[in-house]
Amino acid sequence: MKFALAQTNPTIGDLENNLNKILKNIDLAAKENVEVIIFPELALSGYPPKDLLLKRQFIEDNKKYLNLLAEKANKQITVILGIIEENYGEGKPLFNSVAVIKENKIVYTRQKTLLPTYDVFDEDRYFESGKTITPAKLFGKNFGLSICEDIWHDDISWARPRYKIDPITELCKTNLDLIINCSASPYFMGKPQLREKVLINCAKKHKLPIIYVNQVGGNDDLIFDGNSCIIDKNGEVILKLKSFEEDLQFFDLDVPHPTISPSPHNPEEELLQAITCGLHDYVNKCGFKKVIIGVSGGIDSALVATLAARALGKENVLGIFMPSRFTSSESEKDAKDLANNLRIELKTFSIEEPFKAFTQLLSPTLSEKGVGIENIQSRIRGSILMSLSNETGSLVLTTGNKSEIATGYCTLYGDMCGALAVISDLSKNNVYNLSKYINKKEGKEIIPENTIRKEPTAELRPNQKDQDTLPPYDVLDKILELYVEDHIPAKEIVNNNIPIETIKKVCNMIDVNEYKRQQAAPGLKLTSRAFGFGWRMPIAKRYKEN
Amino acid sequence: MKFALAQTNPTIGDLENNLNKILKNIDLAAKENVEVIIFPELALSGYPPKDLLLKRQFIEDNKKYLNLLAEKANKQITVILGIIEENYGEGKPLFNSVAVIKENKIVYTRQKTLLPTYDVFDEDRYFESGKTITPAKLFGKNFGLSICEDIWHDDISWARPRYKIDPITELCKTNLDLIINCSASPYFMGKPQLREKVLINCAKKHKLPIIYVNQVGGNDDLIFDGNSCIIDKNGEVILKLKSFEEDLQFFDLDVPHPTISPSPHNPEEELLQAITCGLHDYVNKCGFKKVIIGVSGGIDSALVATLAARALGKENVLGIFMPSRFTSSESEKDAKDLANNLRIELKTFSIEEPFKAFTQLLSPTLSEKGVGIENIQSRIRGSILMSLSNETGSLVLTTGNKSEIATGYCTLYGDMCGALAVISDLSKNNVYNLSKYINKKEGKEIIPENTIRKEPTAELRPNQKDQDTLPPYDVLDKILELYVEDHIPAKEIVNNNIPIETIKKVCNMIDVNEYKRQQAAPGLKLTSRAFGFGWRMPIAKRYKEN
Repeated sequence: MKFALAQTNPTIGDLENNLNKILKNIDLAAKENVEVIIFPELALSGYPPKDLLLKRQFIEDNKKYLNLLAEKANKQITVILGIIEENYGEGKPLFNSVAVIKENKIVYTRQKTLLPTYDVFDEDRYFESGKTITPAKLFGKNFGLSICEDIWHDDISWARPRYKIDPITELCKTNLDLIINCSASPYFMGKPQLREKVLINCAKKHKLPIIYVNQVGGNDDLIFDGNSCIIDKNGEVILKLKSFEEDLQFFDLDVPHPTISPSPHNPEEELLQAITCGLHDYVNKCGFKKVIIGVSGGIDSALVATLAARALGKENVLGIFMPSRFTSSESEKDAKDLANNLRIELKTFSIEEPFKAFTQLLSPTLSEKGVGIENIQSRIRGSILMSLSNETGSLVLTTGNKSEIATGYCTLYGDMCGALAVISDLSKNNVYNLSKYINKKEGKEIIPENTIRKEPTAELRPNQKDQDTLPPYDVLDKILELYVEDHIPAKEIVNNNIPIETIKKVCNMIDVNEYKRQQAAPGLKLTSRAFGFGWRMPIAKRYKEN
Repeated sequence: MKFALAQTNPTIGDLENNLNKILKNIDLAAKENVEVIIFPELALSGYPPKDLLLKRQFIEDNKKYLNLLAEKANKQITVILGIIEENYGEGKPLFNSVAVIKENKIVYTRQKTLLPTYDVFDEDRYFESGKTITPAKLFGKNFGLSICEDIWHDDISWARPRYKIDPITELCKTNLDLIINCSASPYFMGKPQLREKVLINCAKKHKLPIIYVNQVGGNDDLIFDGNSCIIDKNGEVILKLKSFEEDLQFFDLDVPHPTISPSPHNPEEELLQAITCGLHDYVNKCGFKKVIIGVSGGIDSALVATLAARALGKENVLGIFMPSRFTSSESEKDAKDLANNLRIELKTFSIEEPFKAFTQLLSPTLSEKGVGIENIQSRIRGSILMSLSNETGSLVLTTGNKSEIATGYCTLYGDMCGALAVISDLSKNNVYNLSKYINKKEGKEIIPENTIRKEPTAELRPNQKDQDTLPPYDVLDKILELYVEDHIPAKEIVNNNIPIETIKKVCNMIDVNEYKRQQAAPGLKLTSRAFGFGWRMPIAKRYKEN
């Protein structure tokens, strides 16, 4: 039996273009005599549609386009895809379903049972859990159709059983021939490997092949890595689709296939592809082509400019260098070297005159060494970038990393200005690692070696260094990983040979800077816990760990 | 039998002070020979603790303080309160429970069945739904203990049945003598009246008295209005606690009580109290006393300054007037009149010099009539306010209303700067109504009559008026109400005699300005659907209603 796996990159809510993309894939598959083509979860609307699901018109429009799909799809082929389905019974008004379209009719639907409601996921907000467990009977076989989380009832992925039901095990009791999973499973570092393990475990446990089709592409903060695949009943990978790119592959399950041996895991390359994908899609799906980046000579802006040039093309990246009286000639050289290496345009605007005007206006209110005088420089720079953005119709990319945003080592309405925070989920150490990797991969200096080598500084006062305010980044990033990503109590972090005073200081910085993060630009999710949509902390709180 | 209803105002996570508040109420009740005292939902942690619930240490600390409460509580009195309870079985790791403490022991718990997961509520993110339905046997009687949403399985509050189970009906099958509900039910306009109706309906339906104890006070965007009450088995209100204030009331249920006839509903007074409460608590619970407000002579900043003076005291409010070359003498007079009327300090900083410096620096990049030149003025003002905030340790209050924030008629990092958006959930019409009400209530001009009378303008270019860009506010606000609060399709809004072109223009403005709102300050929720935490729209989307 011949299958097609269609790993599509939808734009949220763009029903017409998403439909056309689906139809195009169906036509390509039909030419190859495919019998069944499989698309990701919520393939027409794109995932996650979020509160668009609360709009009655959106649900009606989805239904209309689903009917168009059924009507227009090539009759020779059976289509399996994720859809929004109305719930006419009690409970939430919708189901997150999988549908089978055969000869212009929807002949089967099954409703997602396990609805992720944690981290960035809010499915209980919209969907009722489906409890019906019947296979789809197609071509004389029993297809176990499942949706994303349905297949994640697994001992290796959760510390404790998250759900009471295991829909795959229930489905398998109905004498299945095959498990199919339509997914929209977002990326974070290590997730593709974890996901493959979960799928392999599931195939082995039930002694059934699994066809897994994942969404690909960036939607706001989320990046979907694709990596759709087929696992045979022995748990061997026998087909693997592309990472971070659309793909369409055909596969005859009745013909024996060699096992695909696992390719060596290159974490930096994976990260590079992920960010490139997320950045490209955010800019383009927002309807923009060009971006503006404040380039300081430092590592963060250098990396973001490099990523932008990769994702959007060097002609679409404008660097803005904004020196002050505290900017060193070293910084200027580093900024110019970067622009030369990337072959991007670099414009210079000195902030001296606005800075003088502000300090004159605000003196004597503003003390000479206060944080106000530092922040004003950052806010002048933010205003310059935003003015240029307003005039040229380009998006501003903001360049803060996770270590800064965690500790509040950044200026609200200053360097935090921008449409997208490209590396806000990368720790400073990861920023260095990725920068070095890019230079190594290109076989030449892209990010100036001096930028990588020198001590990091915000240059908002004379001789300022990050480490005047923050502990060494190695220590800081370890605390962040444990305290933010894993919610480990401060008192247990000392097991990593970090003094308790340092831990308490950093944890307190993280806690009290929640107000900044809640006004931050959306940032690409790259770890298991990013700040932003999946991090929901109160601001006006007074909790201190015991 | 004598009850105490303790309507407390906790600070999120402030376990020590929240415990002390509870113990103080218990002592006061013990002196009155009360047998049972009842507190709100999650009374120790405060509601909503949000992602603090994901921290293991937070759960341990809550348990510790609950044990302290059991240990320290006066033995003469039975305590009923909402607690966090661990789930040792499958599913989410916690329950949102109600506990009974008697003679220093927790003798009973019941787990909340209906977990709100819509709008601002995320309870499925943290809690497993409790299915156990057994009454608490106390003093030879059957107490039906429930938590907040458990009592909202009601035909009048939902358009369709939201839940499959009605825990109150199930509890009533166990031969109850009384229903008790521990709540944390946040305010929006009309909510106190709706809630009372739901409670009256429930009492009548089950022919049982209900003791309802609600949290009070502001926590971030949410304002809890209190309004705890007792409804008798005939659906008559026989006790009512204060609105927007802490309260402790004693009540002997065995003694006949007169019915409390409904007081006439004054929507503006209710709104005034709500905002005052939310604003006061946000500033204080964040650890601040003083606020700074950019005062322009316009209605929005005038109202916010007035509300701040009420909530925090006039000595804690600093107005900043920041004229430009486009500022009229009328605006200056209005700003000064306001400050005089409120007796708040007003400082003036002309933005002329920074504005000149910016325009010189950015010319010829910046076109003379572009949006860039307008925004730069707004961003200079934002920077001035933030500098003063940084220097003085005061919070900046931002003054945008819902009509502006909906349509994007505001400058990101400019007038949107601030720690709290006080009136971001009030339409322009509501801003006028509330302003007029305050003047009427005070019997004198507080908000200058000229500010109320004149045409609204942003004064970012010569002779600019809001209505150059926006439709009349009457029309705009009607569209907002239907499109934002009720998610009514644009094509159905025409039934309100508004031209379809106007509707489409406004709806499009709302859709494309999502990026601004996602970087907005938290705003007090005052309607059934505020922007912010309960409004979760994708940014990079391309949905147009059919």
